[in-house]
Amino acid sequence: VATRPITFLSDYGYEDEFAGVCRAVIARIAPDARVIDLTHGIERHAVERGAVVLANALPYAPAGIHLAVVDPGVGSPRRALAVRATSEDRVLVGPDNGLLWPAIERLGGVAQAVDVSLSAFRLEPISATFHGRDVFAPVAAHLAGGAALADAGEQIGAESLTRIEIPQPSIEEGRVVAHVVSVDRYGNVALDLAERHLPETDLRLGRPVSVETAAGTRSAAFALTFADVPAGDLLLYLDSYGSLALAVNRGDAAGDLGIDPGGEVVLRPAG
Amino acid sequence: VATRPITFLSDYGYEDEFAGVCRAVIARIAPDARVIDLTHGIERHAVERGAVVLANALPYAPAGIHLAVVDPGVGSPRRALAVRATSEDRVLVGPDNGLLWPAIERLGGVAQAVDVSLSAFRLEPISATFHGRDVFAPVAAHLAGGAALADAGEQIGAESLTRIEIPQPSIEEGRVVAHVVSVDRYGNVALDLAERHLPETDLRLGRPVSVETAAGTRSAAFALTFADVPAGDLLLYLDSYGSLALAVNRGDAAGDLGIDPGGEVVLRPAG
Amino acid sequence: VATRPITFLSDYGYEDEFAGVCRAVIARIAPDARVIDLTHGIERHAVERGAVVLANALPYAPAGIHLAVVDPGVGSPRRALAVRATSEDRVLVGPDNGLLWPAIERLGGVAQAVDVSLSAFRLEPISATFHGRDVFAPVAAHLAGGAALADAGEQIGAESLTRIEIPQPSIEEGRVVAHVVSVDRYGNVALDLAERHLPETDLRLGRPVSVETAAGTRSAAFALTFADVPAGDLLLYLDSYGSLALAVNRGDAAGDLGIDPGGEVVLRPAG
Repeated sequence: VATRPITFLSDYGYEDEFAGVCRAVIARIAPDARVIDLTHGIERHAVERGAVVLANALPYAPAGIHLAVVDPGVGSPRRALAVRATSEDRVLVGPDNGLLWPAIERLGGVAQAVDVSLSAFRLEPISATFHGRDVFAPVAAHLAGGAALADAGEQIGAESLTRIEIPQPSIEEGRVVAHVVSVDRYGNVALDLAERHLPETDLRLGRPVSVETAAGTRSAAFALTFADVPAGDLLLYLDSYGSLALAVNRGDAAGDLGIDPGGEVVLRPAG
Repeated sequence: VATRPITFLSDYGYEDEFAGVCRAVIARIAPDARVIDLTHGIERHAVERGAVVLANALPYAPAGIHLAVVDPGVGSPRRALAVRATSEDRVLVGPDNGLLWPAIERLGGVAQAVDVSLSAFRLEPISATFHGRDVFAPVAAHLAGGAALADAGEQIGAESLTRIEIPQPSIEEGRVVAHVVSVDRYGNVALDLAERHLPETDLRLGRPVSVETAAGTRSAAFALTFADVPAGDLLLYLDSYGSLALAVNRGDAAGDLGIDPGGEVVLRPAG
Repeated sequence: VATRPITFLSDYGYEDEFAGVCRAVIARIAPDARVIDLTHGIERHAVERGAVVLANALPYAPAGIHLAVVDPGVGSPRRALAVRATSEDRVLVGPDNGLLWPAIERLGGVAQAVDVSLSAFRLEPISATFHGRDVFAPVAAHLAGGAALADAGEQIGAESLTRIEIPQPSIEEGRVVAHVVSVDRYGNVALDLAERHLPETDLRLGRPVSVETAAGTRSAAFALTFADVPAGDLLLYLDSYGSLALAVNRGDAAGDLGIDPGGEVVLRPAG
């Protein structure tokens, strides 16, 4: 059996060696496993943000083992999970704090779930604070090498998994109250408003939109892409994951609007 | 045919998952392709800086596919390129905004160029804002896997490629007006003055140099390496890519001199 | 003979292409070598910090070639090393400034050491300032590909290697004066006090500890893990490498205590 690829996402950052030591552990156990780093730049302890990024990214990744660690409750009684999704032969490995949930949903739900907290694959002695190294990475590596999921831990019920609620926009007569899900390196602002919500709203591609934030109200074009507006102008657009987003062409929308993840944005048809 | 390696440079940064999703797309299409990340830390939208780094780095990389994405014009009518260079079997993939040009020149010019904007290899549906994921990475992966360049898009003329001008120093009687090309993590300042310019100047290795910036004038040794001057002293030296550069031994020349990329530095023989 | 894996640690950071160019050089020489990036986020020129991280990480990595570059003396007469450790077939490659020493000690000491400054494997022309690219990476790649250590340079005596002293805590009657070794992304503070020192001290797991820093004195629980104290509370715990460390559950201990690497912390039994 060929070794399966492992994608890896975490909030370990790049200054410390945490992600690197997990890669080292994987290489010891499964020398041929290809590790695909999705990002280790998730803000520390930002479980919800990690969950959204993971769910957005996995459909683009090859089926395999999907390791994800954003784990503020490490050392608490929270469970450690390995979960096979129904739609493809994909196994997600990470803490049972909701981090994996949106990705599991997007991949068709739970086919099989095990609690790997006391996995026979874990490293000994196990530390109280670095389960990425001692539990999640070794479990992922053994699964990549062909171990059976049932051998990785104790079978648990799908309904027992921790779920998280992703924020939802409030769609009202003449306006939408949306929330900032993320701000990327370019200052582009992804909202919790998605393409599928659009028919319920009064917002239409090509028509101007009024954008109200704590810092005031601005007008934006609802356009296809950055280059549809002059440099420096604000636009609303459908981003590459199907979320509505705000950008300033060649500028920094988050900076201009003074908004951060979690902030509120009110959108209204304008003109 | 063995899968070819893919080098990858971008301005995607490390906080977001953009580079990781491109790696995931590559792994889906070409599971055996080795991806060599050159850097994803190019300043956002800094096409010229990315072009210089790419041209400096590629001669050290194995021949293969060279993916590069610094793309402020994504979604505009700018073309997407795959270009085979003449000197080795190297194919560069990226936006037609000049990013690839200095590297192509250094690799002997254009052997064959195709516009991959509407490539049969692109992902569908294609987004308006993430062509790294939807166009460039899949084209690079298919080429790494052995696809013919002619099958990646529409043949175009070499003369139609967008070129960029790298800044040039002004070499005058008794002085050189150079420009800051980059500042690295150590505060070392690379200038647009290169080893090949030296014979035209009055600057000689071993002789002191007067260094004038907006912040004032300082004296520097023109030395071989950092350790040739005491800790804290300024030196002019030939850096590892053949550019003249300023450094402070165990210090931070850019910080001390108060200069940033694009800034002007006047060099004169001193003493 | 199978190509051996190469771990890679440096202070090159992520903004520049330095680590990427070293990876490119390795891929040219040893196309099949797996490169495991431990971290490139070591603070610039922080030889001692790099040494501690390397010594902590290598026991988790597969035996192979261990490339490490934190090299403020590049271009000075400091030697360049390749050293085989006694306990496994591991070869460490890096500058002779003490960076490799704690890892070598942890791996059982020196079995064979060569000076690779003038190695036949180095790139020509060799730069004065980028020996990662021109010396260390090519030597590591040739060794990964099966070259004999004796062919990489000149044999030297084990006793001639540069050593560094890691700071030691001062254990006194009724108090311990410890030093901050590192602060990680989560604000957790590792001390030079280790598990093996505990029996000599008056500190006992489960008993409260008084923590004195320049900013004042606070009380902490000496607990197993973060979740043993309420969110926001300070704790002393044994971290995942066996060092005593300070953390604030779901908070930022270094920020709260106002301490940085090198700082002093006085611990006393409390209550």
